[in-house]
Amino acid sequence: MKKTETFRRAEITSAGVIQFRDVTRTKPNPGEVLIKVKSCALCGSDVHIYKGKHPYVSFPCTFGHELSGVVEELGPGTEKVKIGDRVCVEPLITCGMCYYCKRGKYDYCENLKLKYRSGYGGFVDYYLADERWVHILPEDISFDEGALMEPLACAVHAVKRADIRSEDSVCIVGDGPIGLMILQVARAAGATEIYMCGLLERNLAVASDLGAIAIDSTRGDPVKEVVGKTARREGVDISFEAVGLSQTFDQALSVVKKGGSSVIIGIFEDQIQSQRLRDAMVREVKVVGTVNYCWDFETAIDLVHGKRVDLKPLITHRFPLEQIEEAMETKLDRSHQAIKVIINPS
Amino acid sequence: MKKTETFRRAEITSAGVIQFRDVTRTKPNPGEVLIKVKSCALCGSDVHIYKGKHPYVSFPCTFGHELSGVVEELGPGTEKVKIGDRVCVEPLITCGMCYYCKRGKYDYCENLKLKYRSGYGGFVDYYLADERWVHILPEDISFDEGALMEPLACAVHAVKRADIRSEDSVCIVGDGPIGLMILQVARAAGATEIYMCGLLERNLAVASDLGAIAIDSTRGDPVKEVVGKTARREGVDISFEAVGLSQTFDQALSVVKKGGSSVIIGIFEDQIQSQRLRDAMVREVKVVGTVNYCWDFETAIDLVHGKRVDLKPLITHRFPLEQIEEAMETKLDRSHQAIKVIINPS
Amino acid sequence: MKKTETFRRAEITSAGVIQFRDVTRTKPNPGEVLIKVKSCALCGSDVHIYKGKHPYVSFPCTFGHELSGVVEELGPGTEKVKIGDRVCVEPLITCGMCYYCKRGKYDYCENLKLKYRSGYGGFVDYYLADERWVHILPEDISFDEGALMEPLACAVHAVKRADIRSEDSVCIVGDGPIGLMILQVARAAGATEIYMCGLLERNLAVASDLGAIAIDSTRGDPVKEVVGKTARREGVDISFEAVGLSQTFDQALSVVKKGGSSVIIGIFEDQIQSQRLRDAMVREVKVVGTVNYCWDFETAIDLVHGKRVDLKPLITHRFPLEQIEEAMETKLDRSHQAIKVIINPS
Amino acid sequence: MKKTETFRRAEITSAGVIQFRDVTRTKPNPGEVLIKVKSCALCGSDVHIYKGKHPYVSFPCTFGHELSGVVEELGPGTEKVKIGDRVCVEPLITCGMCYYCKRGKYDYCENLKLKYRSGYGGFVDYYLADERWVHILPEDISFDEGALMEPLACAVHAVKRADIRSEDSVCIVGDGPIGLMILQVARAAGATEIYMCGLLERNLAVASDLGAIAIDSTRGDPVKEVVGKTARREGVDISFEAVGLSQTFDQALSVVKKGGSSVIIGIFEDQIQSQRLRDAMVREVKVVGTVNYCWDFETAIDLVHGKRVDLKPLITHRFPLEQIEEAMETKLDRSHQAIKVIINPS
Repeated sequence: MKKTETFRRAEITSAGVIQFRDVTRTKPNPGEVLIKVKSCALCGSDVHIYKGKHPYVSFPCTFGHELSGVVEELGPGTEKVKIGDRVCVEPLITCGMCYYCKRGKYDYCENLKLKYRSGYGGFVDYYLADERWVHILPEDISFDEGALMEPLACAVHAVKRADIRSEDSVCIVGDGPIGLMILQVARAAGATEIYMCGLLERNLAVASDLGAIAIDSTRGDPVKEVVGKTARREGVDISFEAVGLSQTFDQALSVVKKGGSSVIIGIFEDQIQSQRLRDAMVREVKVVGTVNYCWDFETAIDLVHGKRVDLKPLITHRFPLEQIEEAMETKLDRSHQAIKVIINPS
Repeated sequence: MKKTETFRRAEITSAGVIQFRDVTRTKPNPGEVLIKVKSCALCGSDVHIYKGKHPYVSFPCTFGHELSGVVEELGPGTEKVKIGDRVCVEPLITCGMCYYCKRGKYDYCENLKLKYRSGYGGFVDYYLADERWVHILPEDISFDEGALMEPLACAVHAVKRADIRSEDSVCIVGDGPIGLMILQVARAAGATEIYMCGLLERNLAVASDLGAIAIDSTRGDPVKEVVGKTARREGVDISFEAVGLSQTFDQALSVVKKGGSSVIIGIFEDQIQSQRLRDAMVREVKVVGTVNYCWDFETAIDLVHGKRVDLKPLITHRFPLEQIEEAMETKLDRSHQAIKVIINPS
Repeated sequence: MKKTETFRRAEITSAGVIQFRDVTRTKPNPGEVLIKVKSCALCGSDVHIYKGKHPYVSFPCTFGHELSGVVEELGPGTEKVKIGDRVCVEPLITCGMCYYCKRGKYDYCENLKLKYRSGYGGFVDYYLADERWVHILPEDISFDEGALMEPLACAVHAVKRADIRSEDSVCIVGDGPIGLMILQVARAAGATEIYMCGLLERNLAVASDLGAIAIDSTRGDPVKEVVGKTARREGVDISFEAVGLSQTFDQALSVVKKGGSSVIIGIFEDQIQSQRLRDAMVREVKVVGTVNYCWDFETAIDLVHGKRVDLKPLITHRFPLEQIEEAMETKLDRSHQAIKVIINPS
Repeated sequence: MKKTETFRRAEITSAGVIQFRDVTRTKPNPGEVLIKVKSCALCGSDVHIYKGKHPYVSFPCTFGHELSGVVEELGPGTEKVKIGDRVCVEPLITCGMCYYCKRGKYDYCENLKLKYRSGYGGFVDYYLADERWVHILPEDISFDEGALMEPLACAVHAVKRADIRSEDSVCIVGDGPIGLMILQVARAAGATEIYMCGLLERNLAVASDLGAIAIDSTRGDPVKEVVGKTARREGVDISFEAVGLSQTFDQALSVVKKGGSSVIIGIFEDQIQSQRLRDAMVREVKVVGTVNYCWDFETAIDLVHGKRVDLKPLITHRFPLEQIEEAMETKLDRSHQAIKVIINPS
């Protein structure tokens, strides 16, 4: 392959418009590796950008940050991976020098940037990554599953923050991909009685297959139903909000019993207008924020490798890179009942 | 003393009206003790009732729940205290039989009642209490300080829920009595850099004397000032909301650094309208409710006995029982700069 | 049934001698229930007594404390159970009045007694128990499994004290019944990589069936083998000592990585002569004692009911009550490869 | 100052023999700073080496690792400190690349080395240090106090591992410098009832001045005395072993109540021969190893700066560098009652 070779990079140039740009393939810098992308999944934030509703992103922009592939070229001084390794990537840029980086708490890096907002989106043929952020995938994890290690790491992080104890009861408000991942990670952490409240038929069916008690929130008050089913009619030990609406925030607070915790992972487009926060404080609930991940990819890979998390039922659609607009529309159109939509550049 | 003797009980008969009623003194039941009340402090909730704004109380009603006194008569089967003991009281009624009571978590009792809402207010000459809820006061703690063990136990509980580590930085939003107690309890738990934001000149001066960095919230944005002073300009490790307003709730959330905790002890008359909760979730803040106490009176007494908490500067006014209306008006009129107003029936 | 009816009670009258005594059946006292015993398992401590080697027990004595049965008669004031309920029992006597009892920490009761050392052994036709200590068994748990809730509660308690996190690696030194229970409880709590070191062919085979990596300690140094297999060749996060010998104590300390924990549940006949404790301290290991249980029967029952713990493979032998000596000899004779030996009085 | 200038370096050439060697002063490498040493304290391990009894050190060797001084020259690329800064130093060499270093857990570095065992002892005129390990001293901390930040960081680490809660009771077995530091750090963390058991009159007097209840272990059984004095006659919540003998190890385990913790910081020349470990396990005691420090210098400096730890009473002797042998003998001869002996090269 010659240096002057180019590859495709998808960019959103205006709301609803995706264009491909030819990018010159360059050699990896010291410590970097060049990855031939095999799989990159669409995230809700990609959809926000596509709709022109993402508060921090302006056009044109690259997008995509859930990806896996094969190492094709090594920069000088790389040690951890070798050519041909199957890998996934943490799509972060950290400074390595600040207070938090030195303490290994890189998700709090004072200079944290996201790769896709720095011109390095994942909907490309080739992706440059610092070796540090590359994780090798075991043979039994497919590229499509590998692409989902990023959202799974978010779910792992949320569950760690929940501090679940064996035999805790859990309610997940929100039946999207993150909710379905939290379900499985919480179960692996010892939760037994797991409720999932949501709106989507297919997703609730998957939740049920994965061992949850699925509650269709369109058919009545999910809070009453969950609380009424819990062992002592007092609510669950821990809830997760994985939607990002005030209504579901209140549901998450209300299904928890006295002294329990609500972990909030949903992204809120608007300020939270809660009618239940005051009550939750008096019931000594802890409302716990969570975002991103920190040393959680390792756990995510272990969980899939150890058959404790099954990502396959979440992968409902696949498209080649050139059909990314169709992929985006598929995700947007609820009639397709898409859970995770994946792009396979090669 | 004869059985037919009566004593005074203050009752609020309608908004702004306190009347005394003569109550027949009865013998303590098995396990109970009769306490001659020496001191009973006015709490914010008493003021709410007096103003007719307490959501759960209807007139006529008894009130007062921060009290101390001398044991004057023992019911059958009492073992822990003896006549003449100087004591304070946890003003609770618990069932002792429910899931939580059996586990020693009595503040979550499924049948929890407050004595003052069950006809046993503290603004009386004599008070009947189950021996279980009576705590002996060491000689070096005065009756007026003893009356304040109840709010101090609330502060102790709040600080325990904050899980403060030695050398944590702390910001208390609210310079009322509870805030000034939390200040001292947090300091005893190892907090060094302690900020207190408030509005009241006298209270902020007391805070300053007690070692806090006092921030007058009327002179600018207290959040900016606190954050700007913290070691790494990132905010404090832990904040406490001790007011009960949406604005101060947001201040408490905003002064905390990434991954920190906000403990909410203020009583909110209205729903919380937060503009900062969404941001706090993304910064991985924990918002922690706290209410009442559970095995915290023991710690409260230890802290005062060990000179780690000084309640004397908080006691600004004293009245005899017959002047309770004047006491109430003193607390209501800000020009008096009352911190704690105390009634001494004898 | 008439009051003068009698039932059988097994007693050890001297080392190696078991005799049956006819005991008059009495009515349960207030709060008590009379249980028709269906199953009572032999514990290691029963064997110690039988061999005359138990340090705290003198002859004649009753024995047996792992039991289940059917409620046959209710004392006055009982509320929780009804006649015909299938139940297991916590074989404790607590005072309910001391510092720890009041706080719900009944295993630290200052006046704690064991029922079987107070004349109430479990190898009987009928067993009197305070209703408080009786737990109802779901239909899907057999009486023989129900008898094993007591040792399973010990295992649950040990795992709680280990503070296992999801994805922790674990090594259990000792392949007896407690070790095989800890294996399953740890797995339910999220442990993935679980090693079991032991000597017994059948037990190691069961361990392997239950998902552990079985290490035969007779074939070389189990410490080297475990450490060599762990992900980073540094040892496991958490180990359990479930034997009670200095040698296995040292193994448990040595298989743990820096900063890990060793939980010690084995009963040591002799003082611990450790050659590795000094080293463990420098590696910042925590050595954590564990004994008995406290609110752990509930979890034990949940774990079996939820199919997360399978007790059936541990039940290798069953005898009627009259053959209890044969049962004891079966347990003592290693050629029988007994794991749990159970007596069924009816 | 010219490049060919030399400075003094103390070396132990054989047991009991210290010689000075002239060392050429070199320019600091990138990231390094050259420190003019003002103060270096003698540690127990220095004495071990001097006596020829240190298991890991062979002669000739450099020694000394508790030091402070003034930055005199900066290597290329240094950013944190400037010439003239008053500093202390963490005397470690870590790889920065391993599993633990990346996670900020540098005390567990897989390639951890001590500077003084790598030829960089502290009993010198000039000391080269990586800027990373240099901490700036506030003006109110003297150089002699600054030299003691290293042992104080050990004490801080030990107290963090103890997980002390406000109002916990503590017993420190061992009245040496580390014990006296732990005393103060534990008090700053909220411990109120603090016992110190030891043998040395001066040290126990200092302990008493610092607020501890001093127990002279030569006058009877210190365990009985401590346990008899604790509030409920059950022992303390947390003990520290700061001696390194089997006897004091057993004392530390025995003064702790059920469910408490013993933190072991003493360096044991011999294997631990415990008669109380078995009993401690049955009482559910946690025996917690501790060594070195990790992000604890910052806390140590804060504690002294905030007047919560007073190091001055521990500094009993000072010598110029040329009298280091006399300093060593002073420390060895108990009649001098030395606590910390300090060398001031300039």
